[in-house]
Amino acid sequence: MNVTVRGRSRHVRTVTFDTAKNHVILIEQRLLPHQFKIVATKNFRETARAITDMIVRGAGAIGATAAYGLAQGALAFRGGDLKKFSAHVKTVYQTLADARPTAVDPVNAMNDVRAAMSVGQTVEERQALALAAAEEFASEDVLHCEEIGKHGAKLIRNGMKILTHCNAGWLAFVDIGTATAPMYAAQAQGKTFHVFCDETRPRSQGATLTAWELAQQKVSHKIIADNAAGHLMQRGEIDMVIVGSDRTLGRTGEVANKIGTYTKAVLAKRHGIPFYVAIPHSTIDWNLKRGFDIPIEERSESEVLGAWGTISAPISNLQSPNSQLPTPNSVRRAYIRVANPGSGACNPGFDVTPAELITGIITPAGIFKPEDLWDRRRELGFGG
Amino acid sequence: MNVTVRGRSRHVRTVTFDTAKNHVILIEQRLLPHQFKIVATKNFRETARAITDMIVRGAGAIGATAAYGLAQGALAFRGGDLKKFSAHVKTVYQTLADARPTAVDPVNAMNDVRAAMSVGQTVEERQALALAAAEEFASEDVLHCEEIGKHGAKLIRNGMKILTHCNAGWLAFVDIGTATAPMYAAQAQGKTFHVFCDETRPRSQGATLTAWELAQQKVSHKIIADNAAGHLMQRGEIDMVIVGSDRTLGRTGEVANKIGTYTKAVLAKRHGIPFYVAIPHSTIDWNLKRGFDIPIEERSESEVLGAWGTISAPISNLQSPNSQLPTPNSVRRAYIRVANPGSGACNPGFDVTPAELITGIITPAGIFKPEDLWDRRRELGFGG
Repeated sequence: MNVTVRGRSRHVRTVTFDTAKNHVILIEQRLLPHQFKIVATKNFRETARAITDMIVRGAGAIGATAAYGLAQGALAFRGGDLKKFSAHVKTVYQTLADARPTAVDPVNAMNDVRAAMSVGQTVEERQALALAAAEEFASEDVLHCEEIGKHGAKLIRNGMKILTHCNAGWLAFVDIGTATAPMYAAQAQGKTFHVFCDETRPRSQGATLTAWELAQQKVSHKIIADNAAGHLMQRGEIDMVIVGSDRTLGRTGEVANKIGTYTKAVLAKRHGIPFYVAIPHSTIDWNLKRGFDIPIEERSESEVLGAWGTISAPISNLQSPNSQLPTPNSVRRAYIRVANPGSGACNPGFDVTPAELITGIITPAGIFKPEDLWDRRRELGFGG
Repeated sequence: MNVTVRGRSRHVRTVTFDTAKNHVILIEQRLLPHQFKIVATKNFRETARAITDMIVRGAGAIGATAAYGLAQGALAFRGGDLKKFSAHVKTVYQTLADARPTAVDPVNAMNDVRAAMSVGQTVEERQALALAAAEEFASEDVLHCEEIGKHGAKLIRNGMKILTHCNAGWLAFVDIGTATAPMYAAQAQGKTFHVFCDETRPRSQGATLTAWELAQQKVSHKIIADNAAGHLMQRGEIDMVIVGSDRTLGRTGEVANKIGTYTKAVLAKRHGIPFYVAIPHSTIDWNLKRGFDIPIEERSESEVLGAWGTISAPISNLQSPNSQLPTPNSVRRAYIRVANPGSGACNPGFDVTPAELITGIITPAGIFKPEDLWDRRRELGFGG
C-alpha cells in the first residue's frame, strides 16, 4: 500500500525479494508507527532472525518471509551436488522453522516451496523453482487480500462508521490486509467512511499499526480506548465491525482472534450492528470441532502491567525487558511500568467468538455465513 | 484502610484533619501506586491547590477535603468581627469551589458546613461549628461506606471471582470505598475470594489505584486488560461484577460510570453473571429523567494516545504535558506516546448502563433493584 516518505507517496509491500542481490526486503515493523524504514536481510540466517525479532509479524507476512528465506537459502548454494544441496536446504528450512516455533504460517509456506522444488532435476532447476514458488506464494497472498477487498467493499456505504480491532492490515500480509481490504477497496471506489480503531491493549496494535496504515492511506480515522466501543455503539456512532482472525473453525464458524474481539461481537449483537470477519482461506481450520479446544496463549504479564511507546526526552541506558526485542537506537522507545508494582496480571492473548454473533465471513471466494463454511467447503478450496 | 509503610501495616484515611496544627492531611495520590506519601496542606489555599492538582481525587474524598478546607480557612481567622469573618469565609468558599469547577461534591460538602456554621452567634462559635460539621461530613462518608460493605458482603461467597472496573475504592472516599467495601467487609468476615481489576484505560485507575489498594489489603487479585473480561466470563472465570458510579438516576436506575462499565454490564448479562453497582446516597440524581441526557465528558486525546508510568532509567528534563500535574521528582514518572503520531483519538470519559443490565444497587440503606429506587426513595433519604 502507500507510504509517504519525505513528503512523497510511494507503493510498498510488507515483504518483497531482490533477485539481483538475493535479499529479502522488509519493513522494519518494530519502528512503526514512529519511524518508517526498509531493511534487507542478506542471507537466510538474517531472514530467520528478522522473523524471531519481529521485524516482520503477521500471518501472511511471516509466511511469505519464510518462503522467500527458503528460496534465498537455496539460491545461495554454490555447486551442482544435489545431495549436498538437499542437506543445505534442510538446514535452511529448519533454521526458518525454528525462528518462531509456535507459528504455523512459515512452515506451511515453506512446505509449498519445498514441494515445488522437488520436481527439479538439477540444483539450478530447483533453485529457480524455489524462487518461483516463493513469488507465487506472495502473489497469492496479495490476490486473496484483493478478492477479500472486492467482496467486502460492497458492504461499505458512503458515510459509514466502521470499527476494527487489532491489526489485520497490510502490515500483517504481503499487501492490502484482510480486515482493512474492504476499506481500501471502498476508498478506491471513491466511497467516504470513517474508521474507529480500538487501541487493542495490551500490545496496542490498533493504536500503532492500524492507525499508521490508515493515516498513510489517508483514510479518516480515530483511535479509541477498548472501553469506548460500547458507548459509541449505544450512541449510534458505529455502523459495522470488521476484524481479522487467527484461526476460524470450518466446522462451526467460530473465530479465534485477538483478545477483545469477542467483547465487540457481543456488543455489536446487542445493538444490531453487522459484525464481519475477513480471512484468507489459509486461516480456516477444517479439523478442530470445538472453539473451546483452541489453545489460548497466556502471554507475558509485562504487556498488561505497562506499555511501550516513545518518549520526548533523551534517555540513556534504556534496556528492553525482552532480549529478543532490542530497543532500536534511532527512536527513543521506552517501556514504562503503569501498574501497581506489587500486582500481577492475567493476559490471555486471544478469544473465541461463536458463529451466532458473526454476520458474515469475508473470504477471497465471497461472503459466507459462518455456519455455512463446512457445507460450502469446496468453494473455499477444501475437500474433493 | 491498611497501608504497609517500611514493612509495618498501619491504618490510614484518605483525608483527615490535624486540629492542633490546622492542617488537612492527605495521601499524595499522584505518586501512587509507585510511592506512598502523606502530605499536609497548611492553609485553605494549599488545600484548594491539592484539589486542583489532584493530590486528592474521587467524589467522597474531594468533598471531605473541601469541607475540611472551609473549616481550616474559618479557623485561621483572627479576631471577633463577624462581618469581616463572613467576608473571609466567602473567599475561602469561593477559592475551594473554584479548585475543580465541574465537580459537585466540594460545593455540596461546603454547603453542609456553611449551613451548620450559620447558627453560631460569635466567630468562635462558628469556627467550632465549621470544624464539627466537616468532621461529621467525613464520618458520614465512612459510615455510608461501612454500611455498603455490610450489605454487599452478603453477596460474596467463599471462592468467588469478582470483577471490578476503575477505582471506586477507599482512595476515592475518606475510607473503605464503595465497590471495594463489600470486598473488605467479606475479607474481615474471613471469606476468601479473588478480584480481577480491569486496568481501565485510558487512565488505568484499575491497574494503579485499585490494584494498589487490594495489594495493601492483601486481597488476592490480578490486573487484566479491559479486553480480557469477555473471555474470562466465557470461560466461567468471573462470578460477579461490582463497580461504583459517578451518577445514578433515581428515576430510571441508569448508572453513569467510567467508560467501559456499560460493556462489562452487557457481557455480564450475556453470561448470567450478577452485576452490582455500589453507591452512597449522594451519588443519586433524583431530577434527571433520561440517562441519555447525562453529559458525557470528552476528555483529552493524549490519554488515549499514550500512557503514564514509571521508567527504570534516569531521565532528565521530563515535563508533564499537563501543567496542572507537575511531575513529582521523587519517582521517575514519564508519559510515553504509544499511538501513531499522525492519528487522533476520541475519548469519552463515561458511559451509561441501563437498569435492565443491573442486578442490584448496593447503598448504605440496603440493596435495591435499580427500577425500585424511585418508589423506595424515602429509604434513601429523598422526599418527605
